[in-house]
Amino acid sequence: MTQLRLALAQINPVIGDFAGNIERIVHSVRDAREAGAQLIAVGEMALTGYPVEDLVLRESFIAASQSAFVDLRHRLSAEGLDDIAIVVGTLDADGSVRPQATGPRGLVGARNAAVMLHGGRVIAVHNKHHLPNHGVFDEDRHFVPGNEISVVTLRDPDGNASRDIRTSMVVCADLWYDSGPIAKCADENVDLLICINASPHETGKDLARLTVCRRVARRTGAIVAYVNLVGGQDELVFDGSSLVVHPDGRVLAHAPSFDESLLVVDLEIAQEGILPNVTGRTPLTEQAVREPIRAAHADLRLPRLLINSPVPRTSVRRELSAEQQTWQTLQLGLADYVRKNGFHSVVLGLSGGIDSSVCAALACDALGAENVYGVSLPSEFSSQHSCDDATDLVARTGMPHRVIPIDPMMKTFHDELPLTGLAAQNLQARIRAVLLMGISNSEGHLLLCTGNKSEIAVGYSTMYGDAVGGFAPVKDIYKTDLWQLAQWRNEFAMLHGKQPPIPENSIAKPPSAELSLDQVDAGSLPPYELLDAILQLYIDVDWGCEEIITAGYDADVVARVASMVNAAEHKRRQAPLGPKIGMKAFGRDRRLPITHCFAQ
Amino acid sequence: MTQLRLALAQINPVIGDFAGNIERIVHSVRDAREAGAQLIAVGEMALTGYPVEDLVLRESFIAASQSAFVDLRHRLSAEGLDDIAIVVGTLDADGSVRPQATGPRGLVGARNAAVMLHGGRVIAVHNKHHLPNHGVFDEDRHFVPGNEISVVTLRDPDGNASRDIRTSMVVCADLWYDSGPIAKCADENVDLLICINASPHETGKDLARLTVCRRVARRTGAIVAYVNLVGGQDELVFDGSSLVVHPDGRVLAHAPSFDESLLVVDLEIAQEGILPNVTGRTPLTEQAVREPIRAAHADLRLPRLLINSPVPRTSVRRELSAEQQTWQTLQLGLADYVRKNGFHSVVLGLSGGIDSSVCAALACDALGAENVYGVSLPSEFSSQHSCDDATDLVARTGMPHRVIPIDPMMKTFHDELPLTGLAAQNLQARIRAVLLMGISNSEGHLLLCTGNKSEIAVGYSTMYGDAVGGFAPVKDIYKTDLWQLAQWRNEFAMLHGKQPPIPENSIAKPPSAELSLDQVDAGSLPPYELLDAILQLYIDVDWGCEEIITAGYDADVVARVASMVNAAEHKRRQAPLGPKIGMKAFGRDRRLPITHCFAQ
Repeated sequence: MTQLRLALAQINPVIGDFAGNIERIVHSVRDAREAGAQLIAVGEMALTGYPVEDLVLRESFIAASQSAFVDLRHRLSAEGLDDIAIVVGTLDADGSVRPQATGPRGLVGARNAAVMLHGGRVIAVHNKHHLPNHGVFDEDRHFVPGNEISVVTLRDPDGNASRDIRTSMVVCADLWYDSGPIAKCADENVDLLICINASPHETGKDLARLTVCRRVARRTGAIVAYVNLVGGQDELVFDGSSLVVHPDGRVLAHAPSFDESLLVVDLEIAQEGILPNVTGRTPLTEQAVREPIRAAHADLRLPRLLINSPVPRTSVRRELSAEQQTWQTLQLGLADYVRKNGFHSVVLGLSGGIDSSVCAALACDALGAENVYGVSLPSEFSSQHSCDDATDLVARTGMPHRVIPIDPMMKTFHDELPLTGLAAQNLQARIRAVLLMGISNSEGHLLLCTGNKSEIAVGYSTMYGDAVGGFAPVKDIYKTDLWQLAQWRNEFAMLHGKQPPIPENSIAKPPSAELSLDQVDAGSLPPYELLDAILQLYIDVDWGCEEIITAGYDADVVARVASMVNAAEHKRRQAPLGPKIGMKAFGRDRRLPITHCFAQ
Repeated sequence: MTQLRLALAQINPVIGDFAGNIERIVHSVRDAREAGAQLIAVGEMALTGYPVEDLVLRESFIAASQSAFVDLRHRLSAEGLDDIAIVVGTLDADGSVRPQATGPRGLVGARNAAVMLHGGRVIAVHNKHHLPNHGVFDEDRHFVPGNEISVVTLRDPDGNASRDIRTSMVVCADLWYDSGPIAKCADENVDLLICINASPHETGKDLARLTVCRRVARRTGAIVAYVNLVGGQDELVFDGSSLVVHPDGRVLAHAPSFDESLLVVDLEIAQEGILPNVTGRTPLTEQAVREPIRAAHADLRLPRLLINSPVPRTSVRRELSAEQQTWQTLQLGLADYVRKNGFHSVVLGLSGGIDSSVCAALACDALGAENVYGVSLPSEFSSQHSCDDATDLVARTGMPHRVIPIDPMMKTFHDELPLTGLAAQNLQARIRAVLLMGISNSEGHLLLCTGNKSEIAVGYSTMYGDAVGGFAPVKDIYKTDLWQLAQWRNEFAMLHGKQPPIPENSIAKPPSAELSLDQVDAGSLPPYELLDAILQLYIDVDWGCEEIITAGYDADVVARVASMVNAAEHKRRQAPLGPKIGMKAFGRDRRLPITHCFAQ
C-alpha cells in the first residue's frame, strides 16, 4: 500500500493563446506543489486549447504548439516546479506524412498527446488512440492515432521498490473502449491510470463518465483519475467535473462543475491490484481495427510528500439539479464566448416573451446586469402585456433598457415596397435586426439571438430578422424545456432570497411572435408539448417518420413537422452558434445537405 | 483480344429523390442497351445522390435506400433491361454496429458500395475501402470501410474461355491509393477496372484524374473506366468528365464536362494484360492500415453485342479553357441549387460593380435572363457611373430591373437611431438587404449574394447586409480572378457573335462599396493583386505568416491580412453557401474555430 498525493487541475484555456495557457498551467502546478502534490494532471490539449479544428492543418500552428511546449518546460524548470511529475495535454507532431488526396502538400502527422514531464525531461508520451469522428468531433480529419501506451513506474522516494507505482495515461475517448489502450493497461498491471479530457457537457454526461470510469477501474484494477477542461469554446462547454474512481467503484474525489479548480487527493494504492472483473455492460466496439498496441516503459523517482500536511480542503462538490447544470452550461458558454472574443457586453431585443426574458436573465448572470442592454422594439402589433412584461424584466434585473418603436421604419418601407402576408411579418423582424445591429456596431455590444431549439428546428423565425446575432444562448433548448428552466431560475432566486428575474407572465402567457393581429404560435405550429416530443425523436435520435408514428403520434402532424424541419435547413446553415446541451445540437453536431428531398 | 462495348452514364441525381434517380438510371440503361452496350456503369451513390452526410445516421434513410435498390432491380427486370451487366453506386448496410461514444443507439453499418447487377441478380458488391475524410469529405463519419474486392469474370457469349474478361470495381478514392483494392486488382490480373465516382470539380482536377487513371491502368495492366456524377449539390459541383484510359496511357474516350451524357465505347481487351510498371510518381500513402484485402470471385455471361453496328457517335469532347471550366462550374452549381430547391428565378442587387455584374451574367446563363431580377438600390453615395453601369448591364442582358432608392429609409432610421462611421455604412447595406429579402419573400425569387472570396476572406462586407442571400455564386472566386472571368465571358460572347453581357466599365473602374463619400476599396484594403496573392497562401495552402513573409511579402501587410481573415470567421460561419472552385473553399472544406487567438 503506497500513498500518493495527486492533483487534477481543471483549467480554462483559450485556443491558440499559448502564453496565457502556459500561465494557467504553471499556476496550477505551483498551487499543486504548494499543496504537497507529487503528481499533477491537466486536461486534453490544455496547452493549445481544444478543439483546434483545421488550425492543425497549418504547419505554423503545429510549430507554435511545439515551441510553446518547450517554453512550458523551461518555465517549469526555471521556477523549480518540475520536481513533481506533470501530465499535460498538447499537440504533438512527427515527420510522417498524411495523405490529402487532392492537395499538393503533405501534412505533418499531428497527434493529440498526453505528455509526462519530470525534472525538465519528457518521461513519457501517450498519443490518443481512439480518435472520435462522430457528433461534434472531427479527430480522424486532424490527427494520426497512437498505437502504444506508456507505463511509467513512479519510484518510491525511499527506494522501496515494493512501493513503486505503475502508472499510465490515456486521452479522453481512449477510456470509452475496452480494446486498445485500456486492454493493454490491464495487461500491464497499471496501478494508476490518468485520463486527460476535453469532454463537452451534454445532458446526462456526468453519469456516463462516472459509469465509464468505474468500468475501466474495475477492468484494469487501477485507480482512474479523470481530469477535464472547463470553459466555453464556440458550441462546446467543457464542464470540468474531474473525478477519481477506485477499482471498487468508490468516487474518491470529485471536482466542481463549471469552474476552474484544483482537486488534490491522497490516494492509497494497492500494488497487488484488484482482480479485473469485466462482467459490466458491453463496452463500445471498435470503429476500425488498429495495429496491436505496444507498451513503452519509463520511470521517475517521486518526490517525498513536499508538505507533510493533510490534503488541503477543496470546496465540497454540490450535486446540481438537471436544470442547474443546463443553466450553468449556458451561462458559462455565453460568458466565455463574450469574454474570449473580446466583448464585455451584450445587447438583445426584449419582446416580453419567454425566449428573450430567459436570455436576458442568463446574460445578467453571466456578465452582470449592467453589461446587458435590452431594447424593446414595439410595432403596432405589440400588445400592452408585451411592453409591460419587458418593463417588468428590466425592473427585476436592473439591466439598461431603451425603447425604439419601429412603426416609422415600417411605414417608410411600405411606402417604397408594399408587402403583405409573411413578407410583411418578416419585414418587422428585419427592421428590428437592423436597429439591434446598429446598436451593436456603434456601441460594441455582442448581439444575442434569442431563438430556441423548437423554432430553429421548424424554421419559425425570420432570416436576417429575429435569427440574427453573434451568439444564441438557448439555441439547443426546446421551448418546453425553456419554460421549465425559467421556472427553475425563479425558484432558485427565491430559495436564495433574491428577486426572481423572469416575469411570471412571460412564463405563463401563450407564446406569440406578434407580427400580425392576435397572432399566437399555436396558430402556425402544433402545441409545443406535442411539437417538442416529435422533434426530440426526429432530431436528437434520428428516428424516421414511420417509427415516430408507430410510437403513437399523428401521421399528418409528424409529416408536417418533418417537412418543416427539412425546409429550414438553409436557415440553420446561416444561424449563429450557441452552446450544445442535448444529444444532437444544430451546428457541427448535425451535418445535413440543404439540397435533398428525403422527408421520411 | 476481346471486344467489349462499354457505356458510362454520367447522370445528375438529387439526394433522397429515389424515384427520380431510379428513372435516371433506368433511362441510361435503356439508352446504353439500345446502343448495343454489354456493360454499363453509373456513378458513386447515383441511387441516393451524394454526399448524403448525416442522412445516413437516420435508419429510415438506409431503409429507403435499400428499398429503392430493390425497386431498381425490379424495374430493370420488368423492362427486360437486365441482360447487360450494370454497375451502380448505392448505399449498402449491414448489421454491424458502429460506435457512437455518447449516443445510446447503435448505428447500422452503412457502406458506400458499387454493385454489379445482371439478370435480376446481384453479381458482386464492392464496398469503398478508402473513405476520404479531408477537405469537404466526412466519410469516416458515415461509412464502414470495405476490405475485399470482387473479381467478376465476364464470360464470352460463345463460351470461348480465352475471351473471358476479368473485371473489378472500385469507388472513387480507392483509385487514388496504390495499396488496398488497386494492389489487389493488380494481383488478380484484372483486365477492366470500373471506378465509379462522385468527384467534385476543383481547378486542375481534370489533369489530376487523368494522371491517376493512367497510373492505375499501368500499375494493374487493366483498362480503367472512370465514371463520374454531374450536377450541383450545395457547395459541390460534380463535373462529369468521365473517361476511359488504356494501360498504355491512351485516353480511349472522354465524356463532356458539366452535362448529363452517355459515353459508349468499344474496348479491345488483351487478356494477357500489360506488365505492371510502377515507376510513376509516388502514390499517396495510407491514412490508417486496414486489414489485408481479400478477393471474392463471381461470373456472368455477357450478352452478344446487341446491335451489330458501330459505336454511336457521341458528341466530341471539347477541351475547355480554365476560365470556361470555372464559369460552367459556377453556372451549373447555381442552376442546380435553384432548380433542386424548387426555385425558378433569382433576385440580386445591382450596384454597377464587377461582383453583381458577373453574378447577374452567370444567373442569366444559368436560368435565362427573364428569370433574373435585378434591383438597383442607390443611396446618396451612389455615383452616376454606378447607376449607368447597372443600366448598361440590364440593357445588355435583357433582365428585368427596378430601382428603389434607399434614402427615405436611411433618413427614418437615422431619425430614430443616429449612427455614424462604420455603423452608418452597415446600415445602408442592411436596408438594401431588407428590401431584397422583401422582394424575395413576396415574389419567390432566391436571393443571390454577390460577395467574392477576397472580401469574404477579410470580412469586407456587412453581416445581414450585402452578405445575405440563399446562394453565393462567386463565393470561391478571388477578386482578381473575377476580373479575368468577366473578361473571358465578354470575349466568349464576342467570339460567338453575341453581346458581351458585362459592362466594360464595371470591369475597368476601381472597386468601391460606395457606402461613404468617395470611398474606394483601396482605402481599406491592400491592392487586390497583393491581397489575393497573400490570401491564396494563407487560406488555400495554409501557409503561416512567417512563410509568406519569407516568400517576399511585406510583414505588416501579411499580419494585417491574417488578422482580418481571423477576425471575420464569425461572418463566414453565417454566410450563404456557394460552389467550391479552388483548393480550399469557405464552408465544409475549411473548419475553424471562431473563438481563438492564433494569428501566425
